[in-house]
Amino acid sequence: MLDDLKKIAFNVKKVVEEYLENDFENAGEFVKMGEDGTPTTNIDIVAENEVIEYIKDKDLPVNLLSEEYGFMDRNYERTLILDPIDGSFNAENNIPIFSISLAVAKEGLNDLEYAFLLNISNGKYYWAEKGKGAYFMETRLPRIKSNKVVSAIRLGKESDEKVFEIIKNSNKVRSLGCSSLEMAMVAEGSISFFLYYKKNYGILRITDIAASVLILRESGGQVYDPDTMELLNMKLNVKERKNVVASLDRNIIKRLWGK
Amino acid sequence: MLDDLKKIAFNVKKVVEEYLENDFENAGEFVKMGEDGTPTTNIDIVAENEVIEYIKDKDLPVNLLSEEYGFMDRNYERTLILDPIDGSFNAENNIPIFSISLAVAKEGLNDLEYAFLLNISNGKYYWAEKGKGAYFMETRLPRIKSNKVVSAIRLGKESDEKVFEIIKNSNKVRSLGCSSLEMAMVAEGSISFFLYYKKNYGILRITDIAASVLILRESGGQVYDPDTMELLNMKLNVKERKNVVASLDRNIIKRLWGK
Repeated sequence: MLDDLKKIAFNVKKVVEEYLENDFENAGEFVKMGEDGTPTTNIDIVAENEVIEYIKDKDLPVNLLSEEYGFMDRNYERTLILDPIDGSFNAENNIPIFSISLAVAKEGLNDLEYAFLLNISNGKYYWAEKGKGAYFMETRLPRIKSNKVVSAIRLGKESDEKVFEIIKNSNKVRSLGCSSLEMAMVAEGSISFFLYYKKNYGILRITDIAASVLILRESGGQVYDPDTMELLNMKLNVKERKNVVASLDRNIIKRLWGK
Repeated sequence: MLDDLKKIAFNVKKVVEEYLENDFENAGEFVKMGEDGTPTTNIDIVAENEVIEYIKDKDLPVNLLSEEYGFMDRNYERTLILDPIDGSFNAENNIPIFSISLAVAKEGLNDLEYAFLLNISNGKYYWAEKGKGAYFMETRLPRIKSNKVVSAIRLGKESDEKVFEIIKNSNKVRSLGCSSLEMAMVAEGSISFFLYYKKNYGILRITDIAASVLILRESGGQVYDPDTMELLNMKLNVKERKNVVASLDRNIIKRLWGK
């Protein structure tokens, strides 16, 4: 299965790069509303179609759950959870951090089996298999041990005092606009604290984070609901959205998030 | 001259990538204090040595001003202003946004002639020649016109209410940890507002921003001192540091920064 995920990811990289090179000015054009309730753009469609074609061509034994398409029931036990481009805004604006995120599960985040996450702009990837560890390329994660607190935070109009306190209590702050890769950096050990939070609202879909959740768990970390501090679980549903806090170190969450 | 800058940049990319692949765990090791007063690491040295070697081998008709080495007087009129790796922390922690920044001037930011800025992690580059425009690869800048306010801001312990107001007044916020590339994205039109600010202190050196200052000016934008709102000027001195605010649109600075 991991071989197929890798092939799909590099196929998508190829068509996305060609599209961005030849048709950059149309990449961000609105096409329709996606099944997840957010706008679908040309570049999203190009990437998703490539995956659908692969699944059908190879008759891959999975259903598909994707941000734009929604759920494609193919009568299999397992489902491929896809974000064809995580960080579409970055891709459409030449901010070079965006990924394709692929994961396989039966029910949702609770029984993830495989994950493959490709940074489209540089061709480097993270992957994991349940019970067998997480990797960046050929290197087992985590691999970086730093004494600095580096926080990756989503920032926006809704950011409040609690978020600003985290900024003041971190040695470094990054806001990269690509949750999947930022969470994989937590698994790697380079980012110590990850928070996507919008009060009374959820931000991330299962399609955004399924791959990086498995990568992070296999690296020894955990992903929580920041309100309840319960372990995050999400079912196969692109309309559900959750806030997320994550780290390899529960104490760092306690220190920065207060619970 | 631009041909030489491009060759230097790609040589550096090659040695940096080899080093990160084979010796990643030592990349961030402290070697000595650089001439600019900040720690020099192995990866900085590897990159800088590659440039020094090129200049000597080809007898390039320039002096050199570099973050780690300081000023190398070769009795020429022009000076190559070098940051061998802008975003060293990113490079050392596998956060894939770091660059080599090269610019040529006689006196400083006021008479920049050439600029070449290479994103090491994906091999894409920005360049400019005084009076002849700025480019991303072969495309003239600016090339993106968005109705969203996207701010690139440095965040840290010193961030105060004014910075938090900017976050609340932006449609999107990025904090990428690589000032040269973030400023080049302003020239491109993808980032609408750029701020590196630390009260009663300066952050950026001429080596960090010389290339992107020319790229931004040639794209029709300006770089200001955020306290005085005078056009930024810096001499050939790696010890001087300045706060910086920049945009293609003076009105956006007025709206977000208040002056």
